[in-house]
Amino acid sequence: MTHIPQESKEPVDGNLVDFIIPLLIADEETIISDYLGQLHSAEIANLLSALPREYRQHLWKLLPIGLEGETLSYLGEEVRNGIIGKMEDADVIAVAETMNIDGLADVVDGLPDRISDEIIESLDDDRRQRLEVSLSYLEGTAGRLMSTDVISVRVNVTIAVVLRYLRYLKPLPPHTDALMVTNEHGDFLGKLKLDVIVSEHPSSLVGDIMQEDAVTVTDATNEHDVTQLFEQRGLLSIPVIDEVGKLLGRITVDNVVGVIVAEADKALLASGGLSEDEDLFAAILPSAKRRGIWLGINLVTVFMAAWIIGRFEEALDKIVALAVLMPIVASMGGIAGSQTLTLTIRGLALGQISNTNLRWLGNKELAVGFLNGCAWAVVVAIVTFAWFQDIGIALIIAAAMMLNLVAASLSGVLIPVILSRRGIDPALSGAVILTTITDIVGFLSFLGLATIFLL
Amino acid sequence: MTHIPQESKEPVDGNLVDFIIPLLIADEETIISDYLGQLHSAEIANLLSALPREYRQHLWKLLPIGLEGETLSYLGEEVRNGIIGKMEDADVIAVAETMNIDGLADVVDGLPDRISDEIIESLDDDRRQRLEVSLSYLEGTAGRLMSTDVISVRVNVTIAVVLRYLRYLKPLPPHTDALMVTNEHGDFLGKLKLDVIVSEHPSSLVGDIMQEDAVTVTDATNEHDVTQLFEQRGLLSIPVIDEVGKLLGRITVDNVVGVIVAEADKALLASGGLSEDEDLFAAILPSAKRRGIWLGINLVTVFMAAWIIGRFEEALDKIVALAVLMPIVASMGGIAGSQTLTLTIRGLALGQISNTNLRWLGNKELAVGFLNGCAWAVVVAIVTFAWFQDIGIALIIAAAMMLNLVAASLSGVLIPVILSRRGIDPALSGAVILTTITDIVGFLSFLGLATIFLL
Repeated sequence: MTHIPQESKEPVDGNLVDFIIPLLIADEETIISDYLGQLHSAEIANLLSALPREYRQHLWKLLPIGLEGETLSYLGEEVRNGIIGKMEDADVIAVAETMNIDGLADVVDGLPDRISDEIIESLDDDRRQRLEVSLSYLEGTAGRLMSTDVISVRVNVTIAVVLRYLRYLKPLPPHTDALMVTNEHGDFLGKLKLDVIVSEHPSSLVGDIMQEDAVTVTDATNEHDVTQLFEQRGLLSIPVIDEVGKLLGRITVDNVVGVIVAEADKALLASGGLSEDEDLFAAILPSAKRRGIWLGINLVTVFMAAWIIGRFEEALDKIVALAVLMPIVASMGGIAGSQTLTLTIRGLALGQISNTNLRWLGNKELAVGFLNGCAWAVVVAIVTFAWFQDIGIALIIAAAMMLNLVAASLSGVLIPVILSRRGIDPALSGAVILTTITDIVGFLSFLGLATIFLL
Repeated sequence: MTHIPQESKEPVDGNLVDFIIPLLIADEETIISDYLGQLHSAEIANLLSALPREYRQHLWKLLPIGLEGETLSYLGEEVRNGIIGKMEDADVIAVAETMNIDGLADVVDGLPDRISDEIIESLDDDRRQRLEVSLSYLEGTAGRLMSTDVISVRVNVTIAVVLRYLRYLKPLPPHTDALMVTNEHGDFLGKLKLDVIVSEHPSSLVGDIMQEDAVTVTDATNEHDVTQLFEQRGLLSIPVIDEVGKLLGRITVDNVVGVIVAEADKALLASGGLSEDEDLFAAILPSAKRRGIWLGINLVTVFMAAWIIGRFEEALDKIVALAVLMPIVASMGGIAGSQTLTLTIRGLALGQISNTNLRWLGNKELAVGFLNGCAWAVVVAIVTFAWFQDIGIALIIAAAMMLNLVAASLSGVLIPVILSRRGIDPALSGAVILTTITDIVGFLSFLGLATIFLL
């Protein structure tokens, strides 16, 4: 079956960058503006992120009026602040006025106080109040994620009345898949889905056909728990209530998709020792500084390993083969440990690891580590013997490797569990701690055994 | 603001495992069955995945009838096949009969031919035909992801007629957020969203209020492109058409959430050298074998590094400090390189890297690598001098580190770009190739410079 390219395909294609940069260089401003007008603002945001910084400013100035606000809300914090930093204050305020409150809350949160105060002051009373409500919830909670733009109806009206009301309200708030049913105090009673409204008889009462057992969250619910509910239940929206059951707003699936993508992105960047929102074309100095911190932490741990090696100068001096072979033991431990570590971190994120099954997981990983330790110890011993013709070194590297693979498996389970019980994200620091341990155990066991048996 | 625990919160909590295992041990079968009946099948699937294998079989047998099919479709392939493998064929067929076609297609695809053929034969004609259509699309395409359970209407009818039709059809297919508008040949003409239906006057014509420019995909569109469209456009569903524009089905956002979560999971596992769908409580032998492959590949690369070190036996023999310090240069290169690698892999996944901006990215990463190389070279040189009181070694480790960090930055950009142009997923093999290069460059530059200048 051949794939027919469609209009909608082209903008998601990476070659958009190759198309835009020559136009920017040639200063074809009208062609660019016209083209940008055809794109969705999320696509423009992706394009801006893919441009080196000098072109980014240029493209931003060519954005058709009215697209700036939405585009800003799709940008990562670093790229966004870079663009806002180069705008006149008056322009920032003008753009802020076109944004919806949810997007504006995210933008304002990342700006220097001076500009964010100015933006807040420039808003009319109603928008300022809604923005302040949104900002009053912590980032990462359901309260911050929700929209207060919700349609509520009462239990004792008919579908015919609801339909008349909706025709009067039109257009409905974006992503409305359900109405909320509340009483006169605003307490949440149930959810009335649009697919029920369109398929029930006009004389049916809301109270009879609403979904009373609808899943809800409170404003303080962690956004990760919210995304798990959406994933597991296949929801399109979820009502947000306060501690006493009053309806505050709703979270829609498009916001949840954004959170899931951002969480995955954060996990991927963390695994490489990068901060969230790292810009592909960040300024060189701040980028070098941020990454330098991680290199510095690694330098401390690798000096610890070097210090361990330094304890065995005598052995290294007498048997030079030890220096040649010692990285093998450390490296294999690092790989085996990071396999276990990855599996454990993922199990923790899915809520699959608890007190009762931790011992089973530890036993299984130990067994896997031991088996692989045995298998590869034999291979390493044979290669080592073939290379150095020394049965002593061959046996010692085999023993050290088995020790290190068992230690690596155990560390791979225990490090993330201990970190997460102390409230530290194991995705960020787990790998550094693990490789420190596998390096130290690797060098210590190999050089230590050699000192005992070969000197 | 205090967080009030809700009923819906409890099942997503990891402690569910701690609650179930003692009950399983105590053989409290009725309590367990009753409790499982209150859970969503996605939650049961998560619980099953979190149980050691002996308890998993036991819990599966206690599942209330009717929940098995949906639970199976939420399980990862390895856990699922483990459970099916221990079921009687007749039971598998009975469960298959309760599943919807989308879920069944995934299940059947991963089963041995013998059982899958039996399942297909046991279906009635209509279901068999729909299953065969679904299986005819490749995994990872929009065709496989779509549901054919779609409501179509014609342009020339009124909303009043549409509402009457929907009341006749009720209940609507799950996750219906829009109807599809087609002509008498089944060609897709537009989308009619439910929020428009409920807010338009009953006398409005479908053709006047439908969304004509709705984004569509073809059955052959890659599922990654589909998810990007949902993310970027905030869609709830997307029509799937064939090459000539005929409507085939629709993809809903809950399926897309599943794909996004699975993609992120795969990327996370790949970064640790694990295969997709790795089971937390996999059987020990197959698990050791799968991971052993990765360890074997690493062993080859680390023997290459050892061979490089072996070329410098003379230098190592004369200056034992070289053996002590050499892991530092290699390790710092590995960390710096993996930072750049992660950023590049992510840029490629987002379609942000192309021919035109590759040079800028390379220059920026080189500059970042050079700056960090300089900064940490100074620190390493000072510590080395303080430790060994040898200015020659201090200068040489500084120079080697700068060389390796620059090589690491360059490799971090080029390796994933080259791999992905050759159609190889850089997330899986990028890290191994990178650390091979940073190890080799690290040892070669440090020991090589020492041989030239210090011997």
